[in-house]
Amino acid sequence: MHKLVVLLALAGGIAPAQELTGRWVVTADYYGTPVNIRLSLQQQGEKLTGTFQGDKLEGSLSGGTVHFVARDDDGNSATVDAKLAGGALTGTMVLADADDPQRPRKHSFTASKVEPRRGGPSRHHEFTPSVFYRQFSPFNKPVLTVAPGDTIHTTTVDAGGADEKSVTRVLGGNPETGPFYIETAAPGDILVVHLNRLKLNRDWAGSDDFLVPRAVDSDLAVKMKDAGKSIRWHLDLARGVATPEKPSEHLKQYSVPLGPMLGCIATAPSLAQAPPPTGDSGRFGGNMDFNEIVEGATVYLPVSVPGALLYLGDGHAAQGDGELNGNALETSMDVEFTVDVIPQKRIQSPRVESATHIMAVGLEGSLDDAFRTATASMAQWLADDYKLTPSEIAQVLGTAAEYRIGEVADRNAGVVLKLNKERLAALK
Amino acid sequence: MHKLVVLLALAGGIAPAQELTGRWVVTADYYGTPVNIRLSLQQQGEKLTGTFQGDKLEGSLSGGTVHFVARDDDGNSATVDAKLAGGALTGTMVLADADDPQRPRKHSFTASKVEPRRGGPSRHHEFTPSVFYRQFSPFNKPVLTVAPGDTIHTTTVDAGGADEKSVTRVLGGNPETGPFYIETAAPGDILVVHLNRLKLNRDWAGSDDFLVPRAVDSDLAVKMKDAGKSIRWHLDLARGVATPEKPSEHLKQYSVPLGPMLGCIATAPSLAQAPPPTGDSGRFGGNMDFNEIVEGATVYLPVSVPGALLYLGDGHAAQGDGELNGNALETSMDVEFTVDVIPQKRIQSPRVESATHIMAVGLEGSLDDAFRTATASMAQWLADDYKLTPSEIAQVLGTAAEYRIGEVADRNAGVVLKLNKERLAALK
Amino acid sequence: MHKLVVLLALAGGIAPAQELTGRWVVTADYYGTPVNIRLSLQQQGEKLTGTFQGDKLEGSLSGGTVHFVARDDDGNSATVDAKLAGGALTGTMVLADADDPQRPRKHSFTASKVEPRRGGPSRHHEFTPSVFYRQFSPFNKPVLTVAPGDTIHTTTVDAGGADEKSVTRVLGGNPETGPFYIETAAPGDILVVHLNRLKLNRDWAGSDDFLVPRAVDSDLAVKMKDAGKSIRWHLDLARGVATPEKPSEHLKQYSVPLGPMLGCIATAPSLAQAPPPTGDSGRFGGNMDFNEIVEGATVYLPVSVPGALLYLGDGHAAQGDGELNGNALETSMDVEFTVDVIPQKRIQSPRVESATHIMAVGLEGSLDDAFRTATASMAQWLADDYKLTPSEIAQVLGTAAEYRIGEVADRNAGVVLKLNKERLAALK
Amino acid sequence: MHKLVVLLALAGGIAPAQELTGRWVVTADYYGTPVNIRLSLQQQGEKLTGTFQGDKLEGSLSGGTVHFVARDDDGNSATVDAKLAGGALTGTMVLADADDPQRPRKHSFTASKVEPRRGGPSRHHEFTPSVFYRQFSPFNKPVLTVAPGDTIHTTTVDAGGADEKSVTRVLGGNPETGPFYIETAAPGDILVVHLNRLKLNRDWAGSDDFLVPRAVDSDLAVKMKDAGKSIRWHLDLARGVATPEKPSEHLKQYSVPLGPMLGCIATAPSLAQAPPPTGDSGRFGGNMDFNEIVEGATVYLPVSVPGALLYLGDGHAAQGDGELNGNALETSMDVEFTVDVIPQKRIQSPRVESATHIMAVGLEGSLDDAFRTATASMAQWLADDYKLTPSEIAQVLGTAAEYRIGEVADRNAGVVLKLNKERLAALK
Repeated sequence: MHKLVVLLALAGGIAPAQELTGRWVVTADYYGTPVNIRLSLQQQGEKLTGTFQGDKLEGSLSGGTVHFVARDDDGNSATVDAKLAGGALTGTMVLADADDPQRPRKHSFTASKVEPRRGGPSRHHEFTPSVFYRQFSPFNKPVLTVAPGDTIHTTTVDAGGADEKSVTRVLGGNPETGPFYIETAAPGDILVVHLNRLKLNRDWAGSDDFLVPRAVDSDLAVKMKDAGKSIRWHLDLARGVATPEKPSEHLKQYSVPLGPMLGCIATAPSLAQAPPPTGDSGRFGGNMDFNEIVEGATVYLPVSVPGALLYLGDGHAAQGDGELNGNALETSMDVEFTVDVIPQKRIQSPRVESATHIMAVGLEGSLDDAFRTATASMAQWLADDYKLTPSEIAQVLGTAAEYRIGEVADRNAGVVLKLNKERLAALK
Repeated sequence: MHKLVVLLALAGGIAPAQELTGRWVVTADYYGTPVNIRLSLQQQGEKLTGTFQGDKLEGSLSGGTVHFVARDDDGNSATVDAKLAGGALTGTMVLADADDPQRPRKHSFTASKVEPRRGGPSRHHEFTPSVFYRQFSPFNKPVLTVAPGDTIHTTTVDAGGADEKSVTRVLGGNPETGPFYIETAAPGDILVVHLNRLKLNRDWAGSDDFLVPRAVDSDLAVKMKDAGKSIRWHLDLARGVATPEKPSEHLKQYSVPLGPMLGCIATAPSLAQAPPPTGDSGRFGGNMDFNEIVEGATVYLPVSVPGALLYLGDGHAAQGDGELNGNALETSMDVEFTVDVIPQKRIQSPRVESATHIMAVGLEGSLDDAFRTATASMAQWLADDYKLTPSEIAQVLGTAAEYRIGEVADRNAGVVLKLNKERLAALK
Repeated sequence: MHKLVVLLALAGGIAPAQELTGRWVVTADYYGTPVNIRLSLQQQGEKLTGTFQGDKLEGSLSGGTVHFVARDDDGNSATVDAKLAGGALTGTMVLADADDPQRPRKHSFTASKVEPRRGGPSRHHEFTPSVFYRQFSPFNKPVLTVAPGDTIHTTTVDAGGADEKSVTRVLGGNPETGPFYIETAAPGDILVVHLNRLKLNRDWAGSDDFLVPRAVDSDLAVKMKDAGKSIRWHLDLARGVATPEKPSEHLKQYSVPLGPMLGCIATAPSLAQAPPPTGDSGRFGGNMDFNEIVEGATVYLPVSVPGALLYLGDGHAAQGDGELNGNALETSMDVEFTVDVIPQKRIQSPRVESATHIMAVGLEGSLDDAFRTATASMAQWLADDYKLTPSEIAQVLGTAAEYRIGEVADRNAGVVLKLNKERLAALK
Repeated sequence: MHKLVVLLALAGGIAPAQELTGRWVVTADYYGTPVNIRLSLQQQGEKLTGTFQGDKLEGSLSGGTVHFVARDDDGNSATVDAKLAGGALTGTMVLADADDPQRPRKHSFTASKVEPRRGGPSRHHEFTPSVFYRQFSPFNKPVLTVAPGDTIHTTTVDAGGADEKSVTRVLGGNPETGPFYIETAAPGDILVVHLNRLKLNRDWAGSDDFLVPRAVDSDLAVKMKDAGKSIRWHLDLARGVATPEKPSEHLKQYSVPLGPMLGCIATAPSLAQAPPPTGDSGRFGGNMDFNEIVEGATVYLPVSVPGALLYLGDGHAAQGDGELNGNALETSMDVEFTVDVIPQKRIQSPRVESATHIMAVGLEGSLDDAFRTATASMAQWLADDYKLTPSEIAQVLGTAAEYRIGEVADRNAGVVLKLNKERLAALK
């Protein structure tokens, strides 16, 4: 190392090669709103290459000062100047549109490096929640920081806010446990959540005898006009069944098998987006109310902010497809899950994987639109991971598609496209 | 028997009590259009009671002349006068609206009694089709008359009109085998079709690599823009799998299990309705393209004309949910089925029953509407057959509903609501 | 003319050049189903060129025998051999697929020339209907043959079949006047119908107080549960208003301006398609129930069979958007219209033109789909007639689109995209 | 006034009758989440009557201590105990469910009286915004407090955050001016906003040549695949037209009339609801993008929090129906409006009134659902304000409904049902 470099490094300025090289998360100030930008740097001596929000950049490091320019295919450019101090970058970016170069926009920013994946054994965390959030917000302070590969054991309150002791802890509306900060997770990654265990931890669930508007035609609406009262279900954990506590005449023998599931699992959306309520869903996951998000399932969600910020909640002891009552058998839950991070891979919508199937979840304002999104999302999956051509995608979907209706109770309807792994095994 | 009665009877006029008592099918002439009306008569001496299109009637039989008046709750009336001859009634009905009695409408009609259910053992029919119809029409001449309980063994051509020898017999568009006339089936009944056997009878099926418009969003539409070519599949009946005859690179090992199913099964709609094309579906069944209409399944369809007029066709060697390619693996089929009739019972939409599930099929112009129809139809089923109250219906559906997407390839989309018989066993 | 030619011509064989040159309509027999095919021939001596269903053909005429081969871009071929006699062609076509040439398909056919447009003044026809059809069928015998440019004056019965004297003439369901055969109209053309006059010809209309299912959410369905009775409206032709005959308390002063319109206007769909009921709609027009199909409007419909076969009916004295009651103010009508034919031009969906607007009608199973079809159809219109690029289409639609909901009462919903001609004037 | 009362009053405790009588806004703490509850009190001596969230209450005032119990029809109860100090109430409410009385829920609360409507002349406010919000949040601090009847003159930035000087002030996404606090507005009221003036204040607008996914079918999606570039429009305020700055070949003469409108106008939703992003819409109004929200229009929105908290933004120089490009002609705006409050009246969805029409706006996840909501909302309007029965509502809507498609560019689609005031005049 050149003496000057040593000097500068000692002065807190320059970084050794290994310091700049890597993935960074930039947080820029867009007129008062924070915005995350993806940055990847390779340092060779004073030369810098890499990508800035996916576009190629070239620049230099000189005396603790970073300068680079990135350009996209349309000729729009970003010119970045920053100081390196304490492992962080602080500076400005000037964005210029190719067709309006006279009006560049200047934003200040800070950037920090995505923490490297830690070595060593993965850890087990016991976490007892004390606060429950009602928005999938990137601004809530993480309740726990974990590493990829770590396992967390915790509990969730029911949709109405009551915990395993039937104590109401928070106003209802699917209050969530979390957010959990997962190290190394950066915008553009995928968060992987494997549900090791979903265990019921009390003996009752709340539901009702309503049918949601999306499920009724005008005749059925008239028939159901007096429905809508609360129904409390007894959860017989030993026998593995749920029964109405006070069954009416024809339901005296009626029971359903317990099928513990999580109605909500989400990452935080991006900083610039209004934090969604915990009754909502979208590309970030959320209140999907899909009854195959059960013990043993793996859920894949996009990472939009550093640490991903994972939320879980809205446990159901059992639920028919669609959550037709608006409420399923709402109850508290004992949850154990293991997290992982797949770096720099995009998914179009939430994915779920079971022992037998891969599943793409479409969440839109109507079943017709959710159906299209589920199909398009699975087509993307087959193109990305199985390298299928459009013609091949059509042939596989046409012969192997299995659709389930996930959810009709909330603002978004959910349709799930499932493919049996036996079909897929021959594609690899 | 009084002498006079004998005399009149000899004169070809009067009927003995057992002759008028029973269900009749009236075919009235509505300004040139034939219309079926349900009539049920009980004769006690000269006195007649019963129902006319569901409304109570009172009248008399006198000297071979029938006269009765039926009235509905709103005060609308039907006054019927007819002659009995050769076991048939011929006469006129005068319909008067309560709020417009000055403008009665007079229609001539003929009526014949619904044939009684025959005793004796049920029969097996071998039927080789020579004509294939392209509309589910009540006006096509029945190709075979069978009794409830009888079994028919026949074949169907593929959707393109080619038979088991690959000979094109008819223009494509789901040409059908049938119609079969089922004795005793009268408007207002249910036809029951149990599929004893669905056997493939040739070694190829035709399909394509297109995705139907309902399944693609705008991004996927662009990706699929060059798709749309024919794909021929080899059917390996011994191994029970289908494989593309000329597989492209990634599909060289791809195969799907054979799952022979009927895309079309229908009764004829009512006489006053325009006969639907065999690509259409509705309350009468038709081109439902639901991949659980397989060997072992039982299908329930409404009877709208005397004899029900059953059509079958559009065999698929295998089909993913929704028939996403527009074509499934289209092939000819060897079919054996047993028919039965449930008198005087209404269903809101087609029903399917398997060993494990009951299923209500909703067929409408969008998935959202088909979802509502499937739900409403199953609610009706639970009310009618299980005597559940609206509150109980909501509780059962909320905990036990399983939805499948049957069909997105045709004018109607299809959604199916399934209930596991294990849940239902406790309701009886 | 060469002697030999004369000789052959006398022998009933050869045609003079002017006889073969022109557009023909081929009616082929596809395994029992008639199918129309477009044929255009140019004869130069014995040489034949032209197009067969749009594909280029080459062949020869020799001794009254026509032979030609047409090929499409994919290498599929049609080989035609026919005899000319009495101005008609009779023969066979052999169709061979490029990828399956071993299985050619042979169909017999007859063909006749599209009659040339007659010279001379256009005529006025008085037509009193005596039969009314309940399907838009290509198989109904034309009631009158007219030439492009001719004007027809006739009447229509109301949706329930009652005429201007309140006499029921036919079973209800939008019975139609027609079909009218328009000379020179051949498959692939556009039929133009200008409505010169729509005049009410009786003093009442029938309607009801129901709201169709598509218009009600579950709350409104409950509120409307007891509605559904007939409402008779008085048509005050002098004052130009309609009022309920027996108005309830709050409607004693209520009146609506008369706005006579045709609920149905259609051409017959193609021979191979099942004839649609007169309550249905589609690319052929039909029961569009669009309240801008009024006196002064021009309607453009595709021609699918020789003569177009124009149907009209379902007059409404007035109708709010969507025909929310299922019935509008249903009444008989006095209609005068002028027809014309635009040869060889395709439209994606029905078009309507008023003094101020051009309008594309989308008719699909949901409002969402009908909206897309209306937009796509207008985009096509702007591309075809105004030569706009996709970018320009987006700019014009984004700034000038006006949408109306045409129809929600029938199987298809209708959405109409209107563009003001003032905007379009600058595009030409 | 009785001496004892005076004494107690002096002791800081009791309130004179006029102090407690009136409407109050209660803000309760539901496990950490603030919730507003409506309270209306009538004091007669020590006796208290009134309503608590709409349910009747009875209680007493004694020595500065308020105690009352409210009960609903199902037997659920609220027991309130509070101290009066400084014109405010502070205390607790205990909520007990009729069917679960053993688990009452206790919440602390504060309450303050809704300020009375001020006398005196209404005022004019000049307001220059310095902050622009990107959520319709009840938690943003009001920028100005005004009284019913007051007029505010202000400006809005464009959807991208640029002001009248083309200076970007805030990150895009429909940043809003406001919120304005309107005195006397309390949850359960209606806020009335009359737009006196909408004036363009710069000479350009930004748009693009994209078509939103909701508008394209799969064919049009393929045609539009390369569209999506920015289009800048020149606003000629003198001539009143907009033209593309760099028109392509066929648009060289194209212009559209200026039609300044507000894409966004909203009240804040309730405290317990996650604040919606400014691209969203709902019962609170928001990003409705309806091109009849223009100068001269009056908008009615529900009040969900004290002061209503009015937001405005997203000005469009012109917009075709639906905002098909995703962006309209986005520009900054000079706005003058007058506010008013209608106390204690509920509306189902936003309402707009012009000189000629009343309009109910339906905003849902699909056009089909938005259509239903618009219809149901107008039905409610006719029932509430015109006292029409369900039968009368059906007759009026069936004959007078006019539907417009407001918006297809955002998460919610918008359909508007308009009724001409000429029809309605006869109903009053």
